[in-house]
Amino acid sequence: DLMAELSAHFQPKILQGKHVLLTAGPTAEPIDPVRVLSNRSSGKTGYALARAAWEAGATVTMVSGPTALPTPYGVTRITVDTARQMHEAVMARTRDADLFIAVAAVADWHIANPSEHKLKKGKDGTPVLEFVPNPDILAEVAALEQGPWCVGFAAETQALRDHAEAKRRRKQVPVLIGNDAQSTMDADAASYTIFDDAGHTALPVLPKQEAARRLIAEIVRRWQSGDSASATSHPSSAA
Amino acid sequence: DLMAELSAHFQPKILQGKHVLLTAGPTAEPIDPVRVLSNRSSGKTGYALARAAWEAGATVTMVSGPTALPTPYGVTRITVDTARQMHEAVMARTRDADLFIAVAAVADWHIANPSEHKLKKGKDGTPVLEFVPNPDILAEVAALEQGPWCVGFAAETQALRDHAEAKRRRKQVPVLIGNDAQSTMDADAASYTIFDDAGHTALPVLPKQEAARRLIAEIVRRWQSGDSASATSHPSSAA
Repeated sequence: DLMAELSAHFQPKILQGKHVLLTAGPTAEPIDPVRVLSNRSSGKTGYALARAAWEAGATVTMVSGPTALPTPYGVTRITVDTARQMHEAVMARTRDADLFIAVAAVADWHIANPSEHKLKKGKDGTPVLEFVPNPDILAEVAALEQGPWCVGFAAETQALRDHAEAKRRRKQVPVLIGNDAQSTMDADAASYTIFDDAGHTALPVLPKQEAARRLIAEIVRRWQSGDSASATSHPSSAA
Repeated sequence: DLMAELSAHFQPKILQGKHVLLTAGPTAEPIDPVRVLSNRSSGKTGYALARAAWEAGATVTMVSGPTALPTPYGVTRITVDTARQMHEAVMARTRDADLFIAVAAVADWHIANPSEHKLKKGKDGTPVLEFVPNPDILAEVAALEQGPWCVGFAAETQALRDHAEAKRRRKQVPVLIGNDAQSTMDADAASYTIFDDAGHTALPVLPKQEAARRLIAEIVRRWQSGDSASATSHPSSAA
């Protein structure tokens, strides 16, 4: 793709030699062969970040839930449906990853008793769904001893600042990016707030691809400075 | 759109002067501002039928649930989210419609108690969802005294023949088109079976746009012959 190569040419190669693993999109948890429990994530933020990471020189593997988006040029995409499939696909690839960015809107629960056949309104009555918690992919990757440096995302609808910082501490990730779910989901522009040990930084409203490039730069800067005090490999050491 | 005009040029104008109202896509029933109860419908079948009806000379209004598809050239699209919104949008437009084709995969239920804010895994515990039946759009339109001629769709995962014919009788529509949900949803090809008073007719597997043109022809043929014995306006009378 000439346009992709051309636009990448003008991006600083701050992730050269690095392997970025990320998740994107929603998950779809089956209720029966047709019905699903899902969410309004379009995948645009994750796909834009995957593209920005590739433009910055990284090898990018994206584990994506169901979306209608084309795979960004240069990115390896693994398509999954459920949170458990996403968990499995991610855990199998953490060893090779230097940086893990958890963008997907992963369902917190799946249905314990999905029906093998389409539920019938009359015959089967009102469905009773038993919810079972899904694995917490980000917390699990962040807890790995030799794991990648981790960045989380939080889509919130209220008290973004409190919820996002609480999520960052609970999942024990150095950086968490918060956004207002109602204005960002399926939108083409977004404004993000970056939460880290030093506090939080609000980015301006930007088109999603611009915002994604800016986020990659902000993530790499924190990764580099955080690493001067840690054992993880330095992002610029392989360049 | 030159290509759309060109390909329409070669289609017989069997719906000239007619107004076709149709539904397409899934519905999304909110659980909270982010999570939804939905289904795997991509909207491809409904959008292909809308396009085929426009190519056949009709004025086409499509009430669509959330999809990632572009609106077919020439078609008026009304975008809705929930089954109740789709119901309202359809009922407001039946007076002008000559033919109603219910293609959307409408949720049978919505959630009685959607949360105003995003449910929190820890704080809010496991969600308990109370299901409430949604209005039956097709049955309601079919029961109108001066209503349009009605065609239904049935996506089934087992015993297609029995379920589709039962649905046709229950909803009291002259024609119901059945398809195997697991092989058709989100696919680009489809094989349909047409159920009517005379029995059923299986169409061959065709690309969805080809299949849609064929279905429009089959629908119009049944509408015309059915109307020789009824009071509804004849589809070719306005041509």
